[in-house]
This record gives sequence, structure tokens and C-alpha cells, in this order.
Amino acid sequence: MAIFKNKEERELGFGSKNYNNRVRFLGSDGKINVHRAGLGIGNVDVYHWLITTSKTTLVLVIISGYILVNLIFAIVYFMVGPENFGGLDAVTSAQQFMNLFFFSAQTITTLGYGHIYPVGNAASIAAAVESLLGLLSFALATGVLYGRFSRPQAHLLYSKNILISPYKNITGIMFRIANRKQYELIESEASVTITLNNPETKKREFINLKLEISRINFLSLSWTIVHPVDEESPLYGLTRKDFEERDVEFIILMKAINDTYSQTVYSRNSYKAEDIVENAKFKPLVPEVNKRGQLRLNVTDIHNYDIVS
Amino acid sequence: MAIFKNKEERELGFGSKNYNNRVRFLGSDGKINVHRAGLGIGNVDVYHWLITTSKTTLVLVIISGYILVNLIFAIVYFMVGPENFGGLDAVTSAQQFMNLFFFSAQTITTLGYGHIYPVGNAASIAAAVESLLGLLSFALATGVLYGRFSRPQAHLLYSKNILISPYKNITGIMFRIANRKQYELIESEASVTITLNNPETKKREFINLKLEISRINFLSLSWTIVHPVDEESPLYGLTRKDFEERDVEFIILMKAINDTYSQTVYSRNSYKAEDIVENAKFKPLVPEVNKRGQLRLNVTDIHNYDIVS
Amino acid sequence: MAIFKNKEERELGFGSKNYNNRVRFLGSDGKINVHRAGLGIGNVDVYHWLITTSKTTLVLVIISGYILVNLIFAIVYFMVGPENFGGLDAVTSAQQFMNLFFFSAQTITTLGYGHIYPVGNAASIAAAVESLLGLLSFALATGVLYGRFSRPQAHLLYSKNILISPYKNITGIMFRIANRKQYELIESEASVTITLNNPETKKREFINLKLEISRINFLSLSWTIVHPVDEESPLYGLTRKDFEERDVEFIILMKAINDTYSQTVYSRNSYKAEDIVENAKFKPLVPEVNKRGQLRLNVTDIHNYDIVS
Amino acid sequence: MAIFKNKEERELGFGSKNYNNRVRFLGSDGKINVHRAGLGIGNVDVYHWLITTSKTTLVLVIISGYILVNLIFAIVYFMVGPENFGGLDAVTSAQQFMNLFFFSAQTITTLGYGHIYPVGNAASIAAAVESLLGLLSFALATGVLYGRFSRPQAHLLYSKNILISPYKNITGIMFRIANRKQYELIESEASVTITLNNPETKKREFINLKLEISRINFLSLSWTIVHPVDEESPLYGLTRKDFEERDVEFIILMKAINDTYSQTVYSRNSYKAEDIVENAKFKPLVPEVNKRGQLRLNVTDIHNYDIVS
Repeated sequence: MAIFKNKEERELGFGSKNYNNRVRFLGSDGKINVHRAGLGIGNVDVYHWLITTSKTTLVLVIISGYILVNLIFAIVYFMVGPENFGGLDAVTSAQQFMNLFFFSAQTITTLGYGHIYPVGNAASIAAAVESLLGLLSFALATGVLYGRFSRPQAHLLYSKNILISPYKNITGIMFRIANRKQYELIESEASVTITLNNPETKKREFINLKLEISRINFLSLSWTIVHPVDEESPLYGLTRKDFEERDVEFIILMKAINDTYSQTVYSRNSYKAEDIVENAKFKPLVPEVNKRGQLRLNVTDIHNYDIVS
Repeated sequence: MAIFKNKEERELGFGSKNYNNRVRFLGSDGKINVHRAGLGIGNVDVYHWLITTSKTTLVLVIISGYILVNLIFAIVYFMVGPENFGGLDAVTSAQQFMNLFFFSAQTITTLGYGHIYPVGNAASIAAAVESLLGLLSFALATGVLYGRFSRPQAHLLYSKNILISPYKNITGIMFRIANRKQYELIESEASVTITLNNPETKKREFINLKLEISRINFLSLSWTIVHPVDEESPLYGLTRKDFEERDVEFIILMKAINDTYSQTVYSRNSYKAEDIVENAKFKPLVPEVNKRGQLRLNVTDIHNYDIVS
Repeated sequence: MAIFKNKEERELGFGSKNYNNRVRFLGSDGKINVHRAGLGIGNVDVYHWLITTSKTTLVLVIISGYILVNLIFAIVYFMVGPENFGGLDAVTSAQQFMNLFFFSAQTITTLGYGHIYPVGNAASIAAAVESLLGLLSFALATGVLYGRFSRPQAHLLYSKNILISPYKNITGIMFRIANRKQYELIESEASVTITLNNPETKKREFINLKLEISRINFLSLSWTIVHPVDEESPLYGLTRKDFEERDVEFIILMKAINDTYSQTVYSRNSYKAEDIVENAKFKPLVPEVNKRGQLRLNVTDIHNYDIVS
Repeated sequence: MAIFKNKEERELGFGSKNYNNRVRFLGSDGKINVHRAGLGIGNVDVYHWLITTSKTTLVLVIISGYILVNLIFAIVYFMVGPENFGGLDAVTSAQQFMNLFFFSAQTITTLGYGHIYPVGNAASIAAAVESLLGLLSFALATGVLYGRFSRPQAHLLYSKNILISPYKNITGIMFRIANRKQYELIESEASVTITLNNPETKKREFINLKLEISRINFLSLSWTIVHPVDEESPLYGLTRKDFEERDVEFIILMKAINDTYSQTVYSRNSYKAEDIVENAKFKPLVPEVNKRGQLRLNVTDIHNYDIVS
């Protein structure tokens, strides 16, 4: 068994339990696959959720919240009594309620046309409260939108597969990455950890893999990250089948600096045994000089590979 | 006296005075237990206070401020004279004042229904000032709310006790931590300093404790931080009673990166002699794979321990 | 061929392809000269574009957006029917449309004079939607403006030319930089990489150049960055013509801390063979003490040089 | 002449010119004493100025700007013609102008009472432009206020004098610092550079001074920063008079992390020869435990010293 010789252990923080089930520590989207339970409601972080949820969900939350708050205030105004509002010339109760709903919308947005207006004290107080609430909600929305946009992120594209390729005179385990966005990533660093079950100790091991190059200045083109499987490598002699049996997971941690905001950004990815392709080589990805003198790269080509011999 | 052999001193910045009273350098909430006095009013940092005060206090401040400012402007408008306002059809002075109060609320929020409106120059000037003030206050509120939400923090749960446990063939001093929130903490680092009175020099000493592991990549599950009390340790042979007599304090400094905002965050905690439990062992905290394939951890279980022989 | 002796290679991330065309990795404005294509619309980063586009473009976008949205809502209101709006006393359809356009502007800005106001439900709903949209757009605008202003940047002025100058008893390759703004840059670091075609291997090489001084505390005055061309230098004995034939590019990476915001900032520049001036010396740039006791520097003088024998 | 033995030079970036005038590289407020001239208007950084100017100036700028913009729009509206505004029932031109000024204020704040409202197209267009301008200005103001408040700063108090004190068996050059604010500074680092004229080379030299302790974890109490003047020190045997003749400046650079915002902050200070006190010792600054169990420190006591024999 040559698996774990020369290993440099790495403490990722996932413990060393050998799970009976197949387990995936990182989801395919790079999210850590852990659910922390047992925490009270006070630990729910609404802002974090608003920042990280999808655009669609956010839009739905805003629209529903707008309708709901206006409904609540429409009910309040209706209970205060339509007679306490000037300009409310609707006849039916239903239409009065609708008009108070619109009055509420005009109040919470601080629009305030004024063709309907509060007359009595109770109605005026409710409107004063609603307009303050509107301003504060809007302050929150500003913060959430800014927080979402300015949130430091690395939008990396990872090759779909991780290859065991001929590399110099040995083999190499390699994958490719590229930047999906037009901002630049600088000072990029890669680290690759492999985790597998050790059949002898019945424990899960985490081993750091040495990389040919672990740092580049500009991630403007693509970057092929290579672990040379030489005799020093803990993976020397292992095949796809070995990886599969031991429930392997390659855990990729990327760190870079977003050049536009000068912020450090992180990206993660993981490959399981089914993502490994043996005897394959990535298709060379050679940028051409376009008519504007720029190097032009087709980013989605990083997935392409050829099967060799 | 074997207490201070092999010690690696550490300069925390608390001096070396041996206080006659029992003293706690960090509060149990991790706040530094120092009051800096003698500073003028110009050194009060209102924004810092608004950012760090409790939610309840902030809400009260906003509501009281809103009422107060409207009262002040209602008084101003009343002194300018109700006759300088169009649409103010109240008869009694009291109701006129109330209506001017509501007019003020409609002005400071820039709601401006317009059923009451300023007619003379003085009234118009006061309203113009109030609406500018309203916008600026609201700009401030936006900044405060965003500042509160986006403030980098590590919400760590520390085990209630610090244990002296059997550890390999010796003992270890250990406590556990876990993340209370759903965001991820990466690149976590721990440092533990012990401070106690030295009966010989009559000074307070600060000694760095070596940790089994002081850095992990993901703080997704729990982390048991262990100081092995081997012969190299400055704590070799000390009991809970020794710690108590010397008014011990374990000062825990945590540093990590909040993965959502890519910000470095800090957390502190301290344990006093009364938090030490001897001959105890933390209950193993083994995450299970739930039906969605996630590792599921009950975070509040980190407090649990068993007494061993 | 003495070109590549003593070289310390550097992985910038541009690969090693020897382009047949002349190629420039960095534009003269420091932008990386790469176009990443093949990405779907989902990868367009609108916020990044709004943050980095020119002021003129941003103003045009805001004005066009304002007109466009008001046009759209004017059409909606017109289709709902002018009879559903109170106070709309225009006679011609054209003027009705104009008035609805202005009503839209008063609604989206939450101005809401109220001399025109929605009467029916459809009109009221459209107005409620528009005012919400207005608030959200404005929240976005706040974020974009703040993002633009607070974006960490180093505004460095680079000397137009890079000189091959007498330096001590040998020659030095040198250029000058200065801060174009009134904020201070501290902890500045420089790194210079040269890239040229290797006629033997037909590959592009990237070599790190050693600098006389690569870090200074304050970039308050000017800084002349010097690579001494001694016998250890990979450029020893090369002339401007050699540089030209090998399509040289000097890639300058600067890193500093903006003292006002305590943010790390980056700046890049590149010099091609045509920017090299041989046998030239920068004119000394000696600050004088002005009447306020300040050191006074004329920043644009950093370009000036004298030809020497 | 023992001045410059054992010196470790330091590149601050101020060059090595020996100014004939007395020169101060840092102002007493820590600002770098350099004026960079010769830059075009395009390099003026308005946001930076708004962020760093005094509160009073900012308030004046906002008020003047508000009045000015309203004046301009009042003129525009007046030129469009008062007859294009509904509800403008003033008789005299002067009062019409005043009312249009107030209308402008109600428009730019998006208050919009509506008792005065634009009727014609020209008036409506001007009002639509003004309300957009108002929103954008307000977005700017929000950014400026947030930028000012959230700007990372270290508010350190430096002792008024730098002392040459007895220290162990030799002397030490020392000064004290403390935090003026209630937020905590952690991971504080100090660096002290001395600059003086070298009478031999006629150049200005910058020498790094070794510190007894250059880093502490918490700057909660005061910190006395000491350069021990042993035989290794470049200052060994120098007196206040020597320092004066050579136009000495002690340049203090502090770096810390603001615990509330987890931001790195910087502070600078400088001492000239006239700030040196010989044969003096700082009064011990021993915090007492107050009734709430906190260590209580009177911060302004850090200036106090006693003259010793």
C-alpha cells in the first residue's frame, strides 16, 4: 500500500471520522457541506441571507414585503376610519380600502401626492410612523444592494474534469481555471488537498498536494494547476479505481486579489472520483492576438481535453 | 515551584501589576475590561456607539430622536405662527400644535402631502431647513444601518468550561469552539495566553501556551483547542487549586476570515479558575450525514463533557 | 548571448507563447491587455462596469435611464387612460402625454406634488410600482456612487520614459514615479518584470529584475526605481536595439497603502522598447522648503531628463 | 563622532537632501509635510477632501451648496416665468422669486408639498431635472457621511515629550501612547526612525531605532515605547544639544487593528529636539480596579513626568 507515504497532513477542520456513507465535504458549487443545527432564532443572520440569496428571491422578498406592509397599514388606516382621511371620496368600503392601500404606498415611499391625506390625530400618527418605517426600510435596502454588489467574490470557472495526464516523464493530476468576469484577479494562489478513507486506520485523511506552480501574478488567461505524480507524491501509482474505492475528494482552495476593489477573494471547488479522467490531456488553449492588439481567449474552452494513447 | 519554567512570555499590553483585587482582563463576553477616563467630549465617538449598541437601544434612539426633532420643529412652526400655514384649519391651539407636529413629520421625511403647507417666508425657510436636515439624518441612518450589518464579526460559541482532560499519555487543557452563524469561517487561528500572579516577584505574568493545532482551514464543525500539558509546559503539575490561588485567566484570541465578506474577524474569550473542570472529557461530537448528504452538527453540544475516573 | 544568464524566472500568468505579432501585455494605462470571450450574458458584471466606466458615460447612462423609464411609465399611464388621473387638465393628447411624463418623473423621484394624481386602481397600482422602482434605483445609485468614490486606487504618475543611465560605475535601468493626488501613499513596494522573446527556445520569457530599493515608507516625493545593470543582471550588455528586436516589455507592479482609507492599492505600468532612452539621466528633482515650511515638489517634473555624453 | 555607528539605515522616501532651513517631515499632527504641485485640475480629489475636511467645513459646504443650488433653480424658474407655476399667488416679483426659491427647496429634497407646482412644459422639465439632481446629491451625501464615519483611523494620544530617562543601567529614549477612543486597538506595532543631518556627508540620514518591545496585543492601557541607548545604539552618548544642532526628528509610525471594524489603522507622530526632556522619568501610570471590576486609567496622565537628579 503506497497511498500514504510522503504525506504531508493538512488540518482542514473536518475531523477524521470515516463516514460510512459517501460524503462530500464541499458541494460542487464550492459551498461547505455542513449544516449547523441547535442554534436559537437569535443566531439567524438576516443580512447575511439577504446578501447571499439569489436575485430572484431578493426581488420576490422586496415585492412581497412591499405588498404586505401596505396591506397592514391599509388595515390600520381602515380601522382608524376612512372618515379621518381627506380626499377619500370612494363610496364602497372595498374601494375605500383600496384607496387607503394606495395612500399607504404613497406614504411609505414618501411620495405623498396629498390628494388623500390624514386628518385626525390617529391617522396622522400612523402616517408619521409609516413614513419613518419607509425611510428606514429604504436605508436597509440601500445597504443590502450595496452589500451584494460590493461583496468580494472570485467568479472562477473550473474545468469540469480533473485529469491524470502524461506530464514530463511522469504523470500529473491537473485541472484548469479561468476568470469568468471582466475584472482582473491578481496575486492568485492555489492549494489542493486530497481527502480519502484510510482502510487501515479506518480514518479519513487529509493530505496536501504539492503543486508545480502555486502562485501567479495575473489570472488573465487560463491557469492549469498541476500536481506532478512523481515518486515523492502520496498519489504515486494510484488509479481512478483506487480513488473511487477510498471515496476521494480533491478540495481546491483559491485565493486572489480582485484588482477593481483591491480585496482578497476566495473560491473553492471539489472534484470527486467520477470527475477524474485518466489518460487525457487538456487541449492547448492558446490566445490569439485580435485586431485591437488584445490577447483573446475563449474561456469555456478550458473544459476541453483529448484522450491520449 | 514549577510554575514558570519553560515559559514563553507574551506582551499582551496589560502591564505586570499584581492587583490586590481579583481582576478580570477580558469580560466573559470577550470585551476588554478597561475604562479609559479623563478624555474630553471631543473624543466621544457617536458612530462607534451607534454601530456597537444593542438593537433595542438603537430603535429607541431613532424613535426618540424622531419625536424630539418633530417636537422642536413643531414649536418653531408654532412660534412662527399657525397663520403662516395654509390648510391648517384646526381651531384650538392644542390641535394646531398637533397638526404642526404632523406637518413637521411630513416635512422631515420629505413626505410632503401638501394639505398643510408653509405660506410666509419664515415658515418656508424653517421647512426648507427641516427637509435638508431630514435628508442628512436619513443619510446618517443609512450609514449606521449598513455599518452595523456589514461590520465584520466572528460569532463564536465557546464551551462553557475549560477542561483538564486525559490527553494521549499526559493531560491536556482544552476547550471547544463552534461557529454560531451560517456563514463560513475560514483560515481560523487560535492563540491562548495564560495570566497569573507570580508569588515570588509579586508581578502578573503572561505566558503563551503551545497548542496542538493552532490553525485550521474551515471552522465548519467544532474545534477542540488543546494545550498538551507535557513536561515542557509551564503548567505541568498545576491543579485547579493552584490556578485559583494565583487568580488565573486564560485569554483566548481567535482570528479567522469571514468567507462571505472576505474580512478578517476577531473573537476573544476568557476563562477564570471557576470555569476549569478537572478530570473531565468533552463528549465526542460526531456529525452525522443527513438526508441531503450534509454533515449535521448540533452546535450547542460543544458544552457537554463527562467526568472521568 | 548573455541575455538570460542569472535570470530569475517569474510566473506572471501570461504563458510562454512567442507571439508572431508584436504584443503588449499591459496597455499604457496599466490595464491587462486580454479579452476573455465565450462567456454567457450571466457573467456580465453591471456593477463592475458602472464602477469603472468614465464619469461622462455614467452621467449619460443616468440621464438616458431617467428619460427612458419616464417614457415607459408615461406610455403605461397613457394606456391606462388620462381620465384616471385627477388634475390632468390638458386638452390635446400630446400635452396629456407630456403631463403624464412629468407625473412619472414626480412619482419615480418620490417628489409627488400631487396636482396630478392617480384616481383609478390601475393608475394607482402603476404609480405604487413606479415609486418603489424609484427608491430601489436610487438605492442602487447611492451604492454605485459610493462604490466609485471609495474604490481603492493608486493614482501614480510614471515618467514617460525608462532610461538607461550611468549609475555608480555601471549603468542602471530606471524610471520615476510620483503620487498624482493629495492623499498619502505609505508602505510602497515596487516589482519590475521584463518579458522578451527568447530567440533560441522561441518562447516568451519573464524575468524578475532586482531593484536597488524595492520598498519605501512614504511616497510623498518622487521615487526613482533603479535596476542596477551589473554583471549579475540578466540585462548586462543589452542595448535598446536588442530590446527592440526581442519585443521587450517592462512590466511594473506597484503596491502601496492609501493612508486615508488604510486600503491596499495597486498600480501597473508597462514600458516598451520605444520608451527606452539610452545615455540619459533624470533631472534631479529637489524639493524646496516653501514659506509654510512644507517641502514643495513639482510632480510633473519627473518626466524630465538630460542626455549625457 | 559616535553618531552613526551601528546604524541601520531606513528608506522612508524623503530623499537625503540636507535642507538649509530647519525642516519638519511630519507635522505635529502626523501629517506628511509635503506639497505636491504642478498637477492639473483633473487630479483634484473632491471625495478625499470631503472625507478628510473638518466637520465645520463640511456643514458649511452643505449649507452653502443647498442655498446656491436653490438660488440657481429659483433664477431658472423665474426666467421660465412665474405664470408657469400653479399656486404661486404672490404679487410682487420679489415675493414670487422667494416662493420659487422655496419651491426649488421643496423640489430638490423631493418634499413636493404641491401647493406650488409647475404647469408648463419648461417648468416641469426644470423641476424633473432638479429632483433627479437632488436624489443624486443626496446619494453623494450618504456616501460622504458613511465614508467619514467608517474611515479607519487610530486616534492615539502621544505624550507631549520624548524623554531621555534612566533605564535599567543605561538610559532609554521613551515616549508614551494611549488610545483616545473607547474602541479597542489590537495587534499594535510601533516603529521609530530618527532623521538628522550628517555634518560629514552633508546629507540627511534616516536611522531605524531598535525598540525594547515593538508589538503588543492590546493597546487598552498606555504603552511606553522605549529605545534602549546601549552601546549598540546609534544614539549612544548624544545629548539634547547634539540633537538640536543636527535638526533631529523622531518619526513615529504606529500600526494597529481597530477591533470594531477589523481594519488596519495607522498613526504617525514626530518629535523635534525641543520636545526632548533630559533626565526625566514618566510618572507611573497604574490603573486601579474600579467598582465595576474594570481597570480604570486616566488617559491624559500619560504626559506627566518627573525630573530626576
